[in-house]
Amino acid sequence: MDIAARRTANPDHWNLASAIRVLSMDAVEAANSGHPGMPMGMADVATVLFRNHLKFDASAPHWFDRDRFILSAGHGSMLIYSLLHLTGYEQMTLDQVRNFRQLGAITAGHPEYGHVEGVETTTGPLGQGIATAVGFAIAEEALRAEYGQALCDHRTWVIAGDGCLMEGISHEAIALAGHQKLSRLVVLWDNNDITIDGRVSLSDATDQHARFAAAGWRVLSCDGHDAADIDRALTEAAQDDGRPTLVDCKTIIGFGAPNKADSSKVHGSPLGKDEIAATREAYGWSHEPFMIPEEILAEWRRIGQRGAQARAEWNERVDALTGDHRDDFARRIGNEVSPALEGAIRDFKGRTLQDKPKVATRKASENVLEALNAVMPENFGGSADLTGSNNTKTGGQGIFDADNRKGRYLHYGIREHGMAAAMNGIWLHGGFRPYGGTFLTFTDYARGAMRLSALMGVPVVYVMTHDSIGLGEDGPTHQPVEHLAICRATPNTLTLRPCDQIETAEAWEIALSQDATPSVLALSRQNLPLLRQDSGENLTAKGAYVLREATADAKVVLMATGSEVEIAVAARDALEADGIPTRVVSVPSMELFRDQPKSYREEVLPAGTVRIAIEAAVRQPWDWLLLGERGTEDRSAFIGMEGFGASGPAPELYRDFGITAEAVTERAKALL
Amino acid sequence: MDIAARRTANPDHWNLASAIRVLSMDAVEAANSGHPGMPMGMADVATVLFRNHLKFDASAPHWFDRDRFILSAGHGSMLIYSLLHLTGYEQMTLDQVRNFRQLGAITAGHPEYGHVEGVETTTGPLGQGIATAVGFAIAEEALRAEYGQALCDHRTWVIAGDGCLMEGISHEAIALAGHQKLSRLVVLWDNNDITIDGRVSLSDATDQHARFAAAGWRVLSCDGHDAADIDRALTEAAQDDGRPTLVDCKTIIGFGAPNKADSSKVHGSPLGKDEIAATREAYGWSHEPFMIPEEILAEWRRIGQRGAQARAEWNERVDALTGDHRDDFARRIGNEVSPALEGAIRDFKGRTLQDKPKVATRKASENVLEALNAVMPENFGGSADLTGSNNTKTGGQGIFDADNRKGRYLHYGIREHGMAAAMNGIWLHGGFRPYGGTFLTFTDYARGAMRLSALMGVPVVYVMTHDSIGLGEDGPTHQPVEHLAICRATPNTLTLRPCDQIETAEAWEIALSQDATPSVLALSRQNLPLLRQDSGENLTAKGAYVLREATADAKVVLMATGSEVEIAVAARDALEADGIPTRVVSVPSMELFRDQPKSYREEVLPAGTVRIAIEAAVRQPWDWLLLGERGTEDRSAFIGMEGFGASGPAPELYRDFGITAEAVTERAKALL
Repeated sequence: MDIAARRTANPDHWNLASAIRVLSMDAVEAANSGHPGMPMGMADVATVLFRNHLKFDASAPHWFDRDRFILSAGHGSMLIYSLLHLTGYEQMTLDQVRNFRQLGAITAGHPEYGHVEGVETTTGPLGQGIATAVGFAIAEEALRAEYGQALCDHRTWVIAGDGCLMEGISHEAIALAGHQKLSRLVVLWDNNDITIDGRVSLSDATDQHARFAAAGWRVLSCDGHDAADIDRALTEAAQDDGRPTLVDCKTIIGFGAPNKADSSKVHGSPLGKDEIAATREAYGWSHEPFMIPEEILAEWRRIGQRGAQARAEWNERVDALTGDHRDDFARRIGNEVSPALEGAIRDFKGRTLQDKPKVATRKASENVLEALNAVMPENFGGSADLTGSNNTKTGGQGIFDADNRKGRYLHYGIREHGMAAAMNGIWLHGGFRPYGGTFLTFTDYARGAMRLSALMGVPVVYVMTHDSIGLGEDGPTHQPVEHLAICRATPNTLTLRPCDQIETAEAWEIALSQDATPSVLALSRQNLPLLRQDSGENLTAKGAYVLREATADAKVVLMATGSEVEIAVAARDALEADGIPTRVVSVPSMELFRDQPKSYREEVLPAGTVRIAIEAAVRQPWDWLLLGERGTEDRSAFIGMEGFGASGPAPELYRDFGITAEAVTERAKALL
Repeated sequence: MDIAARRTANPDHWNLASAIRVLSMDAVEAANSGHPGMPMGMADVATVLFRNHLKFDASAPHWFDRDRFILSAGHGSMLIYSLLHLTGYEQMTLDQVRNFRQLGAITAGHPEYGHVEGVETTTGPLGQGIATAVGFAIAEEALRAEYGQALCDHRTWVIAGDGCLMEGISHEAIALAGHQKLSRLVVLWDNNDITIDGRVSLSDATDQHARFAAAGWRVLSCDGHDAADIDRALTEAAQDDGRPTLVDCKTIIGFGAPNKADSSKVHGSPLGKDEIAATREAYGWSHEPFMIPEEILAEWRRIGQRGAQARAEWNERVDALTGDHRDDFARRIGNEVSPALEGAIRDFKGRTLQDKPKVATRKASENVLEALNAVMPENFGGSADLTGSNNTKTGGQGIFDADNRKGRYLHYGIREHGMAAAMNGIWLHGGFRPYGGTFLTFTDYARGAMRLSALMGVPVVYVMTHDSIGLGEDGPTHQPVEHLAICRATPNTLTLRPCDQIETAEAWEIALSQDATPSVLALSRQNLPLLRQDSGENLTAKGAYVLREATADAKVVLMATGSEVEIAVAARDALEADGIPTRVVSVPSMELFRDQPKSYREEVLPAGTVRIAIEAAVRQPWDWLLLGERGTEDRSAFIGMEGFGASGPAPELYRDFGITAEAVTERAKALL
């Protein structure tokens, strides 16, 4: 059917969709930057979705039981901004749309969570949306199982493009979703056959229907420019059949642009004045830029209120809950910090001081979690197939799967990236605090989603064990050396490397108290002695603190983290025995230390002392503490790694790489 | 068929395979660490492969026309170490096998390239092997097209496990291989149904046959413990049908261990004395640990010589080449640096000085490549679907695809991780110098393979454009801030951020001269003026150098990289105008500067000056140059990013984040 026929066949729909298209092309033109083709291509599908299927109320963007709409193909941001404006989200004024991609506007180049209401998660790095959506769907299933369908009953709708489906993370996401039978997850594939470099056939020949079916998905199709056909497909997609659903929406990128549609020319650049004029003509749209005729806007605003009744009814059901239950539900969906956390940690630290366990910090972490998970039903654990190594599973959690939505532990499979993205989604949905484990070196695999945790301010907890050459025989592929530097270089990320079970408990307390910052817990494979002698204040929260005081005014300050604090303490004892007053500063978190007042930092790191840092990793993040904060080049040293590790027993590796108490004392004496 | 029946059905095969199994379980036991289950499970398949199909000559591990064997499931390293020892690779003595996983042995926990002959690529991080293998297969096709089947005629065989197939990178790899119709790539899937956490069904329900078929693969199956059936499948797999081939080898992990086989117990731990004894009994193997009976060893050694004849014939064909052609072929398969490089760069720099182009360094990079690709047929380019943005394609390269194996540019699709791994494989195969582009921020997606480039010492070139907030409107998801720190923190990685077209040419010269270090070129989206005034020596190779001298003894030294050097030069001019002698130091590579003699570093960064570093990224790597190298805290400052970027036009972002010449001059004056 040609455009003219489509215009006349369903003029109501045509006008609604055209409003999205013209807003998108006009905003991109005004910004002289952006991606008009995708919103123009998917306007029909989005119109049908918002008009007939999506459960939402534009006047209440945070209504908990709304359907979630995720634009995985985030470069098509004008699609969602148009929809938010047209349906009447208060924030999304016409001025914001006019200021698309301008500094200070909420209409950023890619949709950013927290920046604008109605955007459920930050998208743009391809594949993140679809993988995060899996987390939303997991959380919905889990919360529905816990609180019942009357309180939690919604779907997750995703628009994904070819880019999302080519990225490796999409494989992890769809396989996880298929295995988990997330039947309320619907992915609308913008099948426009165009990527930036040209036609999809330049780089891909995947049969996506067969691929999704192989992963356990239902596959539907529609003509992405035929409202009735779209509606048929979405209606079917919204009927649970026990599988997640892919809807193949055959579309034309830049639909209606006479000279640029169906080509990569319309993907990432403004159409240009002439093509916009020609496109307006093809649409039969004679209005000025950013002008939406009253009757069309009114219909869109009516659509924006479609969910008002459902929301009112849901509010009534919530109000009808009895006090405790209501408060509990409110706290959970508000992602509030557990009132049980502080007491549980205090008790645990007290017991630890009595038991004096010599355990790996990964085991200490498991011990902490045993105490916490028993009193924090929102904790939602998992591991990328390293459960026994990451020590992430505690008794009684139960396995979350299609047969047991009340389980609170998820076997994510060998999918670090998919796990990290799902964790983001679980938190963003609300109701759960996700944590997940892998080896610290596989930060590399999860980076894309870990960066989004930081950028969005999603306080998930990455349980990263086997955090140095101390893992031993697995060798350099598995031994992180640069990864602490990577985490510390990433803005809004708490990197916590505790030295014993007390610091591990304190690290967990800090991590689970965050509301806008993810945490990375770097934990040892090898056993470590209990070094802390007090359990009162959370000293880890200071980032660095005096763990062992010198017997007189310190001449040497040894700084260390995690498994190397033990080495620092041994070196201190040796130096003290030689009459050299030596202080040990444990540095579980550089970020938290940086946030301390200057006076405290100066107290911990007195000027004029010899300063040595010990960490089985690269030096880069330590220059600050060795050379800055009144440190000097000729009175400081770093004992750590310069290159990659090696395969061998851990004690031999420490000796071989010179990370020993002897090396520290020698160096200290040389510097004195 | 039970074990006893298998033993008697084919005793020759049984003994050969048993030798692998006992060596593997004994070595893991001796190390008290390692993964016995996989080698025990795949011993039959590997035996048939090496005995009947793999083209190799154990006496010549580097014979170019050998088949490549890649153990993607690298934790099963004892499988390949056993095979190398049994077939007679000189390096792989019995002592090395006995010293499995010990420091100093070549038998590292996971197979490491360069550490041991016969290991084609480092594996262990799951999925890397299969994705690197795609690069091997690409290079084989390309070189065969260039030099003919008489000189290049081999296959790439991969053993991959469920872990490899769950990782996202496997999706990128198999889709790329299917699209490219890499018919000489065969993946042997160790389908043992076990992962670390338990049965595969805990985390996955993918129909792998359907999945691979959807990506354009031929799918075969065999009983992975029946030599005849394996042979049938491998025979078929070795017959080209225009598609890559998956062979589903149904195996039992820890095959033959009476109490531990077919469970995750045998995956990553020694079997223990009793189970080993019981397993020996089941195998009918009465020999001492590490003792291989003479006749079995002799048969394995015979297998190791299977390819000797083919190798001799290949050598004859190479010897028969005429002089230039032979030299050229030898240089190419030896991955030697092009003799044309230096002259081409010299000429290009000369022209640049005359033309004085004001171009983005990404465009400068394209200009360099235009000059180089014309004279370096080994350059093999590509981009993860950002060809026009990364400026990676030059005229006349032609597109490498199934219809044109002589093309030298590959559309990798939206597959950063798969591209990076394929680049590693292309280099490791020999014959080509791969470079590939994406945005610098998507280092995050490619990290797993980029780390392996560094660990293996593979000098591929990552063309990372859009290297700061200078990319503008795409916003914080696309704006790297921590990625320069990430690359600089990674051992054996050259991070090059040139400031103009001369430095870009020099950076390319450095990158293409490496033989054991990968390079990351960080390139601007925005235009930059030509700042260099000379084209002689490669100053970039010094890492940092005086770009603008102060008119008198410098009181201020401004350090900057890439797009911020322009800002430093403007600030210098302003300070000089105010009578403050100011030097500008361009720092295109911190790694190269670190390698300079101390005297040079002191010359470039004189003590006692005010020092300011300017880079639109996080400060972490700069502490060294600001506070170390005789810098001091109270006389230095950093002008850069503290958090994530924002969406808006680039000039506004620079102003908003305070990265301006005015900010620099103000800061310098305050510090003086």
